[in-house]
Amino acid sequence: MEDKTAYFDNSASTRLDERVFEAMKPYYFDTYAVATSEFAYSMGIDAKEALEEARSTIADSLNASPGEIVFTSGSTESSNMAIKGVTSALKKKGKHLIVSKIEDFPVLNTAKALEKQGFEIDFIEVDGSGRLNTEQLAETITDETVLVSIQHANQEIGTLQDLESISSICKEKGVLLHTDATHSFTRVPIDVQKIPVDLITIASHTIHGPRGIGSLYIRKDTPINKWMDGGFQEFNLRAGLENIPASVGFAKAVELVTEEENRQIKALRDHLIERISSEITDVILNGSKEHRSPHNANITFHYVEGESLTLHLDMRGFAVSTGSACFSRSLEASHVILGIGGDHERAHGSLRFTFSRYNTLEETDAIVDAIKEIVAQLREISPLYEKK
Amino acid sequence: MEDKTAYFDNSASTRLDERVFEAMKPYYFDTYAVATSEFAYSMGIDAKEALEEARSTIADSLNASPGEIVFTSGSTESSNMAIKGVTSALKKKGKHLIVSKIEDFPVLNTAKALEKQGFEIDFIEVDGSGRLNTEQLAETITDETVLVSIQHANQEIGTLQDLESISSICKEKGVLLHTDATHSFTRVPIDVQKIPVDLITIASHTIHGPRGIGSLYIRKDTPINKWMDGGFQEFNLRAGLENIPASVGFAKAVELVTEEENRQIKALRDHLIERISSEITDVILNGSKEHRSPHNANITFHYVEGESLTLHLDMRGFAVSTGSACFSRSLEASHVILGIGGDHERAHGSLRFTFSRYNTLEETDAIVDAIKEIVAQLREISPLYEKK
Repeated sequence: MEDKTAYFDNSASTRLDERVFEAMKPYYFDTYAVATSEFAYSMGIDAKEALEEARSTIADSLNASPGEIVFTSGSTESSNMAIKGVTSALKKKGKHLIVSKIEDFPVLNTAKALEKQGFEIDFIEVDGSGRLNTEQLAETITDETVLVSIQHANQEIGTLQDLESISSICKEKGVLLHTDATHSFTRVPIDVQKIPVDLITIASHTIHGPRGIGSLYIRKDTPINKWMDGGFQEFNLRAGLENIPASVGFAKAVELVTEEENRQIKALRDHLIERISSEITDVILNGSKEHRSPHNANITFHYVEGESLTLHLDMRGFAVSTGSACFSRSLEASHVILGIGGDHERAHGSLRFTFSRYNTLEETDAIVDAIKEIVAQLREISPLYEKK
Repeated sequence: MEDKTAYFDNSASTRLDERVFEAMKPYYFDTYAVATSEFAYSMGIDAKEALEEARSTIADSLNASPGEIVFTSGSTESSNMAIKGVTSALKKKGKHLIVSKIEDFPVLNTAKALEKQGFEIDFIEVDGSGRLNTEQLAETITDETVLVSIQHANQEIGTLQDLESISSICKEKGVLLHTDATHSFTRVPIDVQKIPVDLITIASHTIHGPRGIGSLYIRKDTPINKWMDGGFQEFNLRAGLENIPASVGFAKAVELVTEEENRQIKALRDHLIERISSEITDVILNGSKEHRSPHNANITFHYVEGESLTLHLDMRGFAVSTGSACFSRSLEASHVILGIGGDHERAHGSLRFTFSRYNTLEETDAIVDAIKEIVAQLREISPLYEKK
């Protein structure tokens, strides 16, 4: 049964690339030794080498050293480890933490969990495009601040933060900076030699790599306590049997992302925004037009429920989502849209489009055509639209 | 390049079963949606269903309900979550924790990490066969005790604890019990309707399933705080994108273990022990003969270094290990062998054999023959053996 659906959703990037699959396969069936057996027999050495080669590839993508990359089970774990590990290591310095108001749940809810344990958290405001107020950030840092955690690209509206300014402020004030780069990794490069960020969360599932694997970049000499206790794996920073097949797959996925692909994805995304903006009335592009990850579009269609639009699109073979993946479940309004000054109507009328390697111009045009029709139909029966 | 090595090591069980691989494949390429998209479009529903079916299979294997199974990234995470989640939820009750002296690192080092945070830990002794002193356990429980964590099968010597007695004691005293069943899961069944254990750590990599996936069984109404913060996945108990392909693979791996296979594995293991005991002098079977997981043998060869034996066996195409996987790296003596009253010589002269689906009688006989020869050669040059 071939799936004819066109995916413009976060699920699109969880589709594994065949080449990633092929790269992983030998580590399931041939070189399947556990890495810590390297001192006991030959296959252990090969397994350990594959793991270290994967680590080098990930490190290169950030211009980091292999010794600064720790493999984790994914971005949620990376952000938990970064925030809980650093705050634990620096608890004698203070208990003040700064995050942005529109962080994704791993950072936002880790901060809230620490708040219950007696930490003081400041949630920094963003402007209408989702960008952080850097002056407010500078003013909020105190002698008690142990960590600032500001995302690179937003999970819903794709807005990119000015990491260069943010990291300069943190460095000047002597405060560590973590960034959740889950939704920008390899699409918008970060060079850790140029940007003095201390910890970076990255993951594999957003770039056609396997799920269940991610990394935390930890700049050399950053104070951090172990969060996952157990064995001595990952430079004694993260316990747990090394997931070598997934690490190798993650590295392969990183290698497969090219500048050319990023340009193509951006062109498709721009085409969708351009057509919707010019062919459908009463729409808002949520997020910054200029400072935006190349694969994200987020659009509010006034007088229309995002949920209805989503269901109609599903029936026609298009997958999109409203709010973040985690949100869709509850019908709460997105904290991101509210965070950039939107109201509940704007939040509920928004669709998020995520472009991936497998999207085509043909299906991009087809989804715009479908949206035009569905929006017109839904508005026809909307009492709010009538009153307009 | 075909690998001719015969694996009698923990790595053996990390070799993925082809049928597991086939079961996972559709969830990489066809039904790759994220599970939380179930409300947005059709593929999300299929993905969610696959996840829940996998959960049911895991639950059935313990005679538990699906709502009592949380997927994690593996046994290390499961044990961290169990111990840190329960102690956090019960911190008003007390800060006393009991573990056995011979626990594997995830439990042992989590306990030690909590000790640094002000918890009081009691490390219960075991007898010469590795079995817990249940009287000592009963006496050690106080009003301040929030959790007892005692493994099911030992990671090195395979000794099975008397979970029935241990759980009765805990229940009687009103204290929660966690067991790390990583090294017994499906090989020695646990029925949670019969044994009142509250939390169980299990994993996939020990039964030819994928790495990077495990579960924590949490009996209904057990007080536990979330440890991995972020999204609302896994009944809002464990955040992080659901690893559906790995969960499906884990479930398949569970289905593939049969009683017949366990009998066969045990027969091979018994054959190895029988031959070594009768054909090689000065050997000790470490652990209990009677209360032992069916796939483990652990033998000390006096007057021989385990590391030398391991290297000689590797050259002849046999993979075994000394100590636990985590230990091999350092040359510290195994805390398990020391825990059952062994000395450093006994610890360093021990080999652990782990039998899996792929071991044969032919290679079992071949490794015994090889060990006989190597041990004889090594003893010939051993000054200790000479003096005997």
